[in-house]
Amino acid sequence: MSGLHVFPSRRIRLTPFTERVEACHVTSYTVYNHMLLPSIFVSLEDDYHHLKAHVQLWDVSAQRQVEISGPEARRLVVMLSARDLRNARPGRCYYTPITDYHGRMLNDPLILCLDENRFWLSIADSDLLLWVKALAGALGLDVQIHEPDVSPLAVQGPKATQAMERVFGAEIAKVPFFHWRPFPFKGRPLIISRSGWSKQGGFEIYLDDHSMGPELWDALWQAGQDLQIRAGGPNLIERIESGLLSYGGDITRDDTPLECGLAAYCDLDAHEFIGRNALLRQREQGITRRLVGIRLEGKGLPQLRQAWRCQYNHRDAGIVTTIIWSPDFATNLGYAMLAAHVPIHEWVEILTPIGTKRAEICALPFVKIPQ
Amino acid sequence: MSGLHVFPSRRIRLTPFTERVEACHVTSYTVYNHMLLPSIFVSLEDDYHHLKAHVQLWDVSAQRQVEISGPEARRLVVMLSARDLRNARPGRCYYTPITDYHGRMLNDPLILCLDENRFWLSIADSDLLLWVKALAGALGLDVQIHEPDVSPLAVQGPKATQAMERVFGAEIAKVPFFHWRPFPFKGRPLIISRSGWSKQGGFEIYLDDHSMGPELWDALWQAGQDLQIRAGGPNLIERIESGLLSYGGDITRDDTPLECGLAAYCDLDAHEFIGRNALLRQREQGITRRLVGIRLEGKGLPQLRQAWRCQYNHRDAGIVTTIIWSPDFATNLGYAMLAAHVPIHEWVEILTPIGTKRAEICALPFVKIPQ
Repeated sequence: MSGLHVFPSRRIRLTPFTERVEACHVTSYTVYNHMLLPSIFVSLEDDYHHLKAHVQLWDVSAQRQVEISGPEARRLVVMLSARDLRNARPGRCYYTPITDYHGRMLNDPLILCLDENRFWLSIADSDLLLWVKALAGALGLDVQIHEPDVSPLAVQGPKATQAMERVFGAEIAKVPFFHWRPFPFKGRPLIISRSGWSKQGGFEIYLDDHSMGPELWDALWQAGQDLQIRAGGPNLIERIESGLLSYGGDITRDDTPLECGLAAYCDLDAHEFIGRNALLRQREQGITRRLVGIRLEGKGLPQLRQAWRCQYNHRDAGIVTTIIWSPDFATNLGYAMLAAHVPIHEWVEILTPIGTKRAEICALPFVKIPQ
Repeated sequence: MSGLHVFPSRRIRLTPFTERVEACHVTSYTVYNHMLLPSIFVSLEDDYHHLKAHVQLWDVSAQRQVEISGPEARRLVVMLSARDLRNARPGRCYYTPITDYHGRMLNDPLILCLDENRFWLSIADSDLLLWVKALAGALGLDVQIHEPDVSPLAVQGPKATQAMERVFGAEIAKVPFFHWRPFPFKGRPLIISRSGWSKQGGFEIYLDDHSMGPELWDALWQAGQDLQIRAGGPNLIERIESGLLSYGGDITRDDTPLECGLAAYCDLDAHEFIGRNALLRQREQGITRRLVGIRLEGKGLPQLRQAWRCQYNHRDAGIVTTIIWSPDFATNLGYAMLAAHVPIHEWVEILTPIGTKRAEICALPFVKIPQ
């Protein structure tokens, strides 16, 4: 992929932190919600080792917010969410599958309940704003919907709390996982949640004034100097080791949450929501395919750019959605959407660009096998 | 931007032509509708000169289709489209603004009428599928909606017709602008329209079987050898010279079609559609800003990555959305969304990254000034 640059254009939006990110020598971007999302600084493996040992600043502005407010905001959020959010409480964050009328995934945001009738859907890579606006308009709901000037900056890694305490005070350490609280920065209260797209611990700061991007970055950068702070981004190796799924990669709009292992986030017996009837039918009939883990020995696989076909007993059985070498597990780890009849611990053949390889199916999350 | 690579992932989709495009040494991509769209092969200017003299193959698979079919397909399309498509005829293509309930732009597709009740919306860069699915679901319309396996390949340039005739026969030359007809390729009828995102003439072939990508590419490549055929992509210089607008760049979801100079495509007095009432009000009250052309002398501007502020009489008057050096016009040409009170032929100050520059406002399309 060397030499394949991102062509500059206003359509691929910069973030409040892009200047700082580029000063830190970002080497690889992805595009996410029409915005630059830094992927690599030193190298995938170097960034990974650093993330698991120290603390990183991640420009995740591309996690845009869909803000829903107004008298019927809660009603609309409940209608949208497979998870039962009738009793969502201010101060909490909820990971929530959002499905279409056929129960297929449109996005899997973290939903922040800001107030009784005000919510942020912190979205994965699809224009959920269009879905929400269309529903509100067609159903004549009394709500306002827009994408606010909010750009999350994530602080991730085992030393994240230390770095954050120095900027926001000791109280930050008391915020529980998937809760948010307001903390002042230069006189402006910022929403900060204990969350993030790694399992190394950390926070997301929802900066709601883009002009303050550089000073927020610099304050954390300064505070983290002796903690070996570096710029980073969601890391492919770490997120797979940790069992995190990527919408658009592992989950697509052809898949239901039940197929993706997200049944725990679908309160099918609790409330009415869009897609519920289809999901009730699928639960009743049983799923015919499911997302599983795979392990594949040996270094040297090329990086996956499109689904690789899988065979079981010489018949097509599904696809690999992502796979990468894990230094910690000393094997390649990945995900596959496979026919439900392929049992865990069975072996499948994967048609990789460098030939057919045998891989073992495993349950998620991944468990380290003692060497 | 050198060194800013696109990080490989299944989420950024490859196309049926990616293998060929990379064999032709693409050097710069953009991401469009979650898919790779080649931007540059040799250089922006070299590609531009070639496009205006010869013929190019463009992998524009990223112009995804939203297919709407079923008994109420036409009803839904009429409801969606600012343009009056009640009498849309099979065989025709319609450039159409699509607006939200507030009259703001969500997309500006080319709509292909395939049949009385079957349409393709060949979309710009936003997930219009979500908008259409939500409306159909909420309003309980009897339609099917999906993104089919259709990947347009454009053949553009003054020699496009010659190249196309050799593969599809002399009849292809008779297809009028913005019409489509089916032409067989290896026994498969392909929809081919006379259209494309340049003003150099040409066609778009809607390949509806991705496995045939390489052979379609190769057939045209072979046929164009003595025409100096090359791989290309939508070219920033040519499209600005030609007055073509880019959704996400020049047109955003904050803008109405009236502000973007698209009033001719809004049949406000003809039919009911989503956003109509807001646009009627805006027409009545008059627009307060509008998209205009700008000319700015002198080489050496950096490539625009985000809006540049404009001032008129030392007061903020709007933004530049794109600008580039035009060899043919021997000046920089661009677009600006400016306060409506700034008259054509007036001068504004543009706050570029390399200092303030004076630019002249002009009407669109651009007209060459005799040297």
